[in-house]
Amino acid sequence: MSSPQRPPLAHVFKGTFVHSSASAPMEILHGHLLGVDDNGTIVFVEQTDQLEQLAKTWGFKTSDIRQLSKHEFFMPGFVDTHIHAPQYSFTGTRIDLPLLQWLTAYTFPTEAKYQDSGFAEEVYTRVVRRTLKNGTTTACYFATIHTDSSLLLADIIDKFGQRAFVGKVCMDVNDSVPQYKEITADSVQETERFVRELLEKKSHISETEEEIKLVENMFPAYQNYTELYDKNKLLNSKTVMAHACHLSEEELKLFSLRGAAISHCPNSNFSMRSGVLNVQKVLEHNVKLGLGTDVAGGYSASMLDAIRKTMVASNSLQINKVNETGLTVEEAFQLATLGGSQALGLDDVIGNFQVGKEFDALLINTKASDSPFDLFSADDFEDTLQKFLYLGDDRNISEVYVAGKQVVPFSSSV
Amino acid sequence: MSSPQRPPLAHVFKGTFVHSSASAPMEILHGHLLGVDDNGTIVFVEQTDQLEQLAKTWGFKTSDIRQLSKHEFFMPGFVDTHIHAPQYSFTGTRIDLPLLQWLTAYTFPTEAKYQDSGFAEEVYTRVVRRTLKNGTTTACYFATIHTDSSLLLADIIDKFGQRAFVGKVCMDVNDSVPQYKEITADSVQETERFVRELLEKKSHISETEEEIKLVENMFPAYQNYTELYDKNKLLNSKTVMAHACHLSEEELKLFSLRGAAISHCPNSNFSMRSGVLNVQKVLEHNVKLGLGTDVAGGYSASMLDAIRKTMVASNSLQINKVNETGLTVEEAFQLATLGGSQALGLDDVIGNFQVGKEFDALLINTKASDSPFDLFSADDFEDTLQKFLYLGDDRNISEVYVAGKQVVPFSSSV
Repeated sequence: MSSPQRPPLAHVFKGTFVHSSASAPMEILHGHLLGVDDNGTIVFVEQTDQLEQLAKTWGFKTSDIRQLSKHEFFMPGFVDTHIHAPQYSFTGTRIDLPLLQWLTAYTFPTEAKYQDSGFAEEVYTRVVRRTLKNGTTTACYFATIHTDSSLLLADIIDKFGQRAFVGKVCMDVNDSVPQYKEITADSVQETERFVRELLEKKSHISETEEEIKLVENMFPAYQNYTELYDKNKLLNSKTVMAHACHLSEEELKLFSLRGAAISHCPNSNFSMRSGVLNVQKVLEHNVKLGLGTDVAGGYSASMLDAIRKTMVASNSLQINKVNETGLTVEEAFQLATLGGSQALGLDDVIGNFQVGKEFDALLINTKASDSPFDLFSADDFEDTLQKFLYLGDDRNISEVYVAGKQVVPFSSSV
Repeated sequence: MSSPQRPPLAHVFKGTFVHSSASAPMEILHGHLLGVDDNGTIVFVEQTDQLEQLAKTWGFKTSDIRQLSKHEFFMPGFVDTHIHAPQYSFTGTRIDLPLLQWLTAYTFPTEAKYQDSGFAEEVYTRVVRRTLKNGTTTACYFATIHTDSSLLLADIIDKFGQRAFVGKVCMDVNDSVPQYKEITADSVQETERFVRELLEKKSHISETEEEIKLVENMFPAYQNYTELYDKNKLLNSKTVMAHACHLSEEELKLFSLRGAAISHCPNSNFSMRSGVLNVQKVLEHNVKLGLGTDVAGGYSASMLDAIRKTMVASNSLQINKVNETGLTVEEAFQLATLGGSQALGLDDVIGNFQVGKEFDALLINTKASDSPFDLFSADDFEDTLQKFLYLGDDRNISEVYVAGKQVVPFSSSV
C-alpha cells in the first residue's frame, strides 16, 4: 500500500481542528484528518471522507490514525511576540511602580544578576518550561546584556524544543542603574559575537507618555519616536515594536509603509498603567500585530491571559466610547496565533494549519482531569471553545507540538 | 494538663497567617499559633512564645499542633458578594452582548430552565464545588424565580458546608422574555414561602447607562435610581447593591447614610462593557464595599480573578487620569475578604482571624504540585504572596475551612 519512495508520516490525527485564516478569525474544522510528515510539515488537512485516497497517497493504515476524543481538539501553538526571559524570576511581583521607576527599582538590578550563569540557567529553564506548558510554541525573547547567558537561553530553548527568537539586550545609556550598561564599543563587539549565532531586531516603542517625553528631550532633532527608529534604520519588516500605546496616525502609517509590526501586551499596559492600545485602529492601518505577555511588566506568562486581557483592553475602549465596537474573542485568538506569526515574519512557516506549514499545535482537552471549568450537556462546541479561551489553563493543554515533535509532556531527558 | 470543663480544641495551627484588619489592608503574622474551638470559633492568635501558657489554658499538647510548612500560610476565606448560581452553566460563554440584550438573549431563557430540578441539581452542585475549591467560603447567591429549586440550592450549599445567602429572584416585570416572570401576587406568596426559611435582600443598581435611562423612564417620579430603592424601603443596612458603576456623589451619600453596601464586580463590568466603578471614591464616602464574581456576567467564578480584575479596573482609572493613585493588591485582598464580610453584614462573624470570629480559612500552598507559578531563592514572603494573588489558582488552595470544619478537599460523602 505505502509508496516506497515516501518516508512514513509522523502523525495522522482525526478529529476537530480550530485555527485562523487571513479571512476568518476562527475556522472550526470538525471531522477532519491532518497529516504531518517526518519533517514536521503539514501535508494534508482534509475531510474524513477523503480517508481512502489519503491513505493510498501517503501510505498509512487506519490503525496509524490517532482519533481525538469528542472533548479534544487541536489549535495552533501560541506565539508570544514579546517576553523578557530574565524578568520571569519576579513575575507576579513588584508591579506597583510606573514603567521608568519600575525599570530602575526592580528590572535593571535583577537583569544585572544574569552575569551569574547558574542563576541564569535556573530562571531560563523555568521560563521555557512554563511557557511551553502554557502552549507558547514560539516566543520572541529578550535576554540581558550578557552574551554568554543569552546564548545559554538559546541552548535551553533548543533542549526543550521551543521555537524562539532570542535577543541580546544592547544598552549604552543607563543613568539610573549605571552598573547595568555597556560601553558602546563593547556593546557592538558583543552583539556581533551574539549575532554570529542569532539574528533578531526588536525594541520597545511609545509605551508610556512619560517615556515619550524622555525620548523627545534626548533626541530633539526627531519629529517623533517612530522617526527616531526609522532614521536610524531600525524600522523595517523585521522590526517588532512592543506596546505602541501612544502612536499617532502618522506613525502608524510609517509602520505600515515599512512593514514593521507591533506586539500588543495588554497585561503589562494595565499593570504598569502605561496606556491602552487601540488594536482596531492599528489593524485598520494594516499594521501587523501580535500579542505578547511582556513578562514581567505583564504578570502572566500565559498567552491565554494575553487573549483575555486583549478583550479587557478592547472592552475598556468601548466603555470609554473610544470605539463603538470591540474585538471578538475569535479575533483575539487569531492575534495570539496567526497574528503573532505575521508580526514575527513567520507566517509562511507557522500560525495555522495550512498545508506546507510546520505543525506547531496544542492538543486541548476540555474535560481534562482537574479542568478549571465545567461543561454541561447544553454546551455546544462553540460554548466549549469559549470556556477554554476564557477559563482554561495549562491543565487543558495536554500535548504541545513544535514542528511535528511532541515537546509537552516534557521528555524525561530534559 | 487539660482543664476538665473545656472541650478539646478542634485545631491548633502553627505558622504564618495573612489577613486584613480595619486599619491594615494586609497583616502578615509569622510564627503564630491559632486555636479553633469545637464550635469553629477562633480562640487565640498569639506568637509562638506564648505556647506554654496557651497549652495550659486550652489544654492541648505539642503533638496536637499542626505545623505549617514554610511554603504554606493561612488566609481568610473569600467572600463572593454577588454570584448568580443558575448562570454558572454558561459562564465563560456568550459575553458578546451588552447587559440588557444579554439578559434577554441568554440569561432569562437559561434561568427559565431551573423549573427542572434535575438540571438545577447538576448546575448547583457544580457551582458550589467550583467556588469552594477556589476558596469562596461565603457566597451571596441569586437563584431564580423558582422557589423549590432555590431551596434545593440551599440544601446543596448545606451539604458541602459553604456559608451562603440564597435569594429567590422576584420579577413581575419582564416584557423581553414573558415566560420568565411571575404574577405579582404569586411572587409575594412564593417569596413569603421562601423567606420562611431564608432571608436576604439584595438587588442590582446602576450597572449600565442604558439601564439607568430605562429606570428613569419607568419611574419618572424618582430623582434617581437610588431614590427609587430608598423610597421603597429597599436601601438599608442589609442591602447589597451590585455594580454601582454610575452612581452620583449624592447617591453615594445616601448609601453611606443608610449603611447600604456595594458589590464590585469588575470582570462583569468589563465583559458586559457596563462601566468601571471608582472603588476609591466609594471608599472615600465610607460606603461598605466587597467584591463579587457576578457569574455569568463575569466569566470567572474565582475570587482571585475578582482581585486581579479589581486591579485592572483601578489601573484603568489611573490610565484615564480619573484617579492619581490606584488600589494596591493588598487593598484588593482586603476587599475580597474583610470588605466582603462587611458588605454582607457578617464582619462580626467572619472576614479575618480576629479572636471570637469563626474560622473560615484557606490553607495556601505556594509550592503545590503542579502550581501555576514558580518560586526562586530570591523571593521573600511578600513576593511569594503576590505571586499567589496574581498567578495562583485552586491548585494552591490545598484546604478550605468553614466555621472550623474542613470542606475542601471534599469529603467522600458528598
